[in-house]
Amino acid sequence: MGMRSDIEIAQSAKLLPIEEIGAKLGLTGDALETYGKYKAKIDLAAFRDKPVRGKLILVTAINPTPAGEGKTTTSVGLADGLSRLGKRTVLTLREPSLGPVFGIKGGAAGGGFAQVVPMEDINLHFTGDFHAVGAANNLLAALMDNHIQQGNELDFDVRRITWKRCMDMNDRQLRSIVCGLGGRVNGVPREDGFDITVASEVMAVLCLADSIADLRERLGRMVVGYSREDRPITAGDLRAEGAMAALLRDAVKPNLVQTLEHTPAIIHGGPFANIAHGCNSVLATTAGLKLADFVVTEAGFGADLGAEKFLDIKCRSAGLHPDAVVIVTTVRALKHHGGAANDGSGGETDSLERGMPNLLKHIENIRNVFRLPAVVAVNRFLTDREEEIELISRRCGEQGVRVVSSRVWEQGGEGGTELAREVLRMIEEGRNGFRFAYEDDLPLRKKIDTLVREVYGGEGAEFSPQARKELRQLEELGYGKLPVCMAKTQYSLSDDAKQLGRPKDFTVFVSRVKVAAGAGFVVVYTGEIVTMPGLPKVPSAVKIDVDADGVIRGLF
Amino acid sequence: MGMRSDIEIAQSAKLLPIEEIGAKLGLTGDALETYGKYKAKIDLAAFRDKPVRGKLILVTAINPTPAGEGKTTTSVGLADGLSRLGKRTVLTLREPSLGPVFGIKGGAAGGGFAQVVPMEDINLHFTGDFHAVGAANNLLAALMDNHIQQGNELDFDVRRITWKRCMDMNDRQLRSIVCGLGGRVNGVPREDGFDITVASEVMAVLCLADSIADLRERLGRMVVGYSREDRPITAGDLRAEGAMAALLRDAVKPNLVQTLEHTPAIIHGGPFANIAHGCNSVLATTAGLKLADFVVTEAGFGADLGAEKFLDIKCRSAGLHPDAVVIVTTVRALKHHGGAANDGSGGETDSLERGMPNLLKHIENIRNVFRLPAVVAVNRFLTDREEEIELISRRCGEQGVRVVSSRVWEQGGEGGTELAREVLRMIEEGRNGFRFAYEDDLPLRKKIDTLVREVYGGEGAEFSPQARKELRQLEELGYGKLPVCMAKTQYSLSDDAKQLGRPKDFTVFVSRVKVAAGAGFVVVYTGEIVTMPGLPKVPSAVKIDVDADGVIRGLF
Repeated sequence: MGMRSDIEIAQSAKLLPIEEIGAKLGLTGDALETYGKYKAKIDLAAFRDKPVRGKLILVTAINPTPAGEGKTTTSVGLADGLSRLGKRTVLTLREPSLGPVFGIKGGAAGGGFAQVVPMEDINLHFTGDFHAVGAANNLLAALMDNHIQQGNELDFDVRRITWKRCMDMNDRQLRSIVCGLGGRVNGVPREDGFDITVASEVMAVLCLADSIADLRERLGRMVVGYSREDRPITAGDLRAEGAMAALLRDAVKPNLVQTLEHTPAIIHGGPFANIAHGCNSVLATTAGLKLADFVVTEAGFGADLGAEKFLDIKCRSAGLHPDAVVIVTTVRALKHHGGAANDGSGGETDSLERGMPNLLKHIENIRNVFRLPAVVAVNRFLTDREEEIELISRRCGEQGVRVVSSRVWEQGGEGGTELAREVLRMIEEGRNGFRFAYEDDLPLRKKIDTLVREVYGGEGAEFSPQARKELRQLEELGYGKLPVCMAKTQYSLSDDAKQLGRPKDFTVFVSRVKVAAGAGFVVVYTGEIVTMPGLPKVPSAVKIDVDADGVIRGLF
Repeated sequence: MGMRSDIEIAQSAKLLPIEEIGAKLGLTGDALETYGKYKAKIDLAAFRDKPVRGKLILVTAINPTPAGEGKTTTSVGLADGLSRLGKRTVLTLREPSLGPVFGIKGGAAGGGFAQVVPMEDINLHFTGDFHAVGAANNLLAALMDNHIQQGNELDFDVRRITWKRCMDMNDRQLRSIVCGLGGRVNGVPREDGFDITVASEVMAVLCLADSIADLRERLGRMVVGYSREDRPITAGDLRAEGAMAALLRDAVKPNLVQTLEHTPAIIHGGPFANIAHGCNSVLATTAGLKLADFVVTEAGFGADLGAEKFLDIKCRSAGLHPDAVVIVTTVRALKHHGGAANDGSGGETDSLERGMPNLLKHIENIRNVFRLPAVVAVNRFLTDREEEIELISRRCGEQGVRVVSSRVWEQGGEGGTELAREVLRMIEEGRNGFRFAYEDDLPLRKKIDTLVREVYGGEGAEFSPQARKELRQLEELGYGKLPVCMAKTQYSLSDDAKQLGRPKDFTVFVSRVKVAAGAGFVVVYTGEIVTMPGLPKVPSAVKIDVDADGVIRGLF
């Protein structure tokens, strides 16, 4: 079984018509707009006025290795496990970006027997949401540059334009450009650059909006640049928000698909996990909570970034209250944190022992900082030894946290039922005193400092003179009550990717900050964050093909 | 009635479920992939092996004024007129680009009571085809620049890269850029620029391919640049065509919608009418001819560009044989050709008389060059006087061509039945000796010269030294048998937009040529052709909005 590739497993699966998946959630008739046989958008009116009934389960992870720890796969398998136990469950995930699909990573729809399908569609265009985000983003840029070209009434300082164009592609050639060349009829020359679409603030806005009206208002608040007198200029000043919202009218509706085992899956939105909050849309999560009894969702990167932002940004913005947290780890990754090679090879039990503090710190954060019940899911590999699992169980047990083996990649939902039972037990137990890591009215600098000390386990934050000045300006402009969105390496609890395990006695250096006024957070940059990835020497694109009947090959 | 805007008329219309529209063409079950309730993609297998049964009717026009002469509206009304006469009819049109929607022109889905619906969807994203074309185009660009960055084994001369990135937006700021700045990890600096997506060769390829396999092969043949030894480098050399075809797997399927009167409409593809061939896809037209008895289709710009390319490029490539041609004109535009102001105001009968030769030349071309039967449709305005219509009828009658009034904007299909009857009569009569304006084996220079003399009515073509050299190189590289695709102003039969009416004693100056080896033609540039439009001082985007229920306003 394990010899088959993900796409082969996915293509041999028997899917149910999407109407049958919708019917499991009470979505019938006009509630679904089908996109082919196996995809549909959910009409916002189909759940808007319903009460929340479901429990919310967050899947997060330790600091990942470059290979990833299987959060998505675990989420799929947990949802299927809950379904097998007879629970009305919805899985909510992010949509994949074309960039990684054609780059290194391949698709992002789970793996093995824990996948969402149709995986080719989900990985390529899906229902067009990302293209709509790109079009809205780029319409705003075109309106801005046209405004400058036509006389610049708003007095843009062309050296302080913060709005970039975007493209759903890994294209390093566009990171840094000069545009508007070629004389007076071809625009005003200035420095510029493209981001990948998922890094656009429009994507973050789409994912945090709770209605079309809210979407439109958030879009209008987005800052695109500054005037020569330092006044922020917004999309609303350019009268762009109406047309942008019109472009996003369908993109804002959650997309319904299914897992290989026919559990309903809502896959919607995909903001970057560093400069944005990295989880699927509020509307998708809300739809799940109104239509099902259990919602399994996932946040990007490790718990220091993904879970923290899920809780401090998304839950705060949408008034969500999680019921349980799953922390995914692998034996291999823990060994890596303990000093073994990147692939975990050659690592022995002592490197596992040395790597444990990374996991323990994340447990501590979920339980003591955010006061939520947690379980550790070990995403099992065939090479894992029983004594290794026992060691993890023992150490976690000392903190009162159970460890469950997850075998969803090989076994699908059957391999996720043990995890599902423990999650149900925790929710039943109800030891839940959810709170944020910081409150709204803490000054921005203190919010950052709190995260460094309490969540990352460091000594505090340091600020460049530029960051200090920018923070002061943002407080003055009235953005001081916003939460902060940390842009930090995912590989370490610190801001140094090489500091594995549980680093101590470090500070985090903040180089600059930027307001995302529409999304409603202040992005805090620690080190260099690439917002437009590049392609590797042999991109996965060259292996992807389609046959004469339209069947796609080589996607993974 | 006429006081309502196009979007108001469209939004108050009662649409039929798209399954009912499909059923009119025998498309049931798996033949349709629905996109919401009123849009569907047609599975290629649903018509691939069927025989052609339908008659093909081309709608073209005189040289237009900037306001347009109503070709699309006339096409819609003619299709509805044929339907009213009990004929099984399909309308096939191009998809609109977002550029004009947010710029000056507004949407492109007909007007008044002769529209295709749902017009908001058709004008905004539709089924995502244009975004797929953009993604495929830009994937190729990213793979090319990545190839150069990773060592440039194919030995690209970065000064001779012909492949541009694209975006479905009017954005003059991107016409001329320098990309790859910022040091060695950020690409290789070079001059570059963006085209609007409809100007991409990928769009032309999508519209000329007759299957997925053909699409894939054409993509592989596209030239992206030249090596330092002058060798053309193709998408196939970069192994890009498989992933590009995978991205276009759904975009290649024709889109089914309906007119306000429920006539099936296939709206698919939208190549630029100057640097490409400017008509909807071969697969759409073929689908229509296999599923219906009459297919009404339209070609961009006036007959000197649109009809010529439809006949010499599209019909040649796809083996199509048109049965009748409708030449659309307005009284206003003929007066304009006769020297009246742009809006036709103040023009009297003598300016109409002076403008007639423009129409007469297009009639002559259709009948004597292409040997097809033609009828003139006067798109009627309330201000037209009967003596003006009589004058047009008299002059056309002298050439044996009938003139019919079309009142489809105010009356829908009812206003198109007279035109429909005349078209049926012509087809019945069968005076049809269709031939191309030139044969394949004529050298490229002679092909261009033939078009200038026979179709435009000039003295011949002149060539810049650069064009002469490029033409010689293309002949040497084996591209000499391809048809030519003229990029010329649409406002005049000559290459000077100010020469209205029927200019004489002119030559056409060819500045450069470029091969579109995937599309299968050589683009011939006469004067400056803008392939990335700009926005006007007050773009129509600022009037577009969406309300809290998702209803779009101000699209027209």
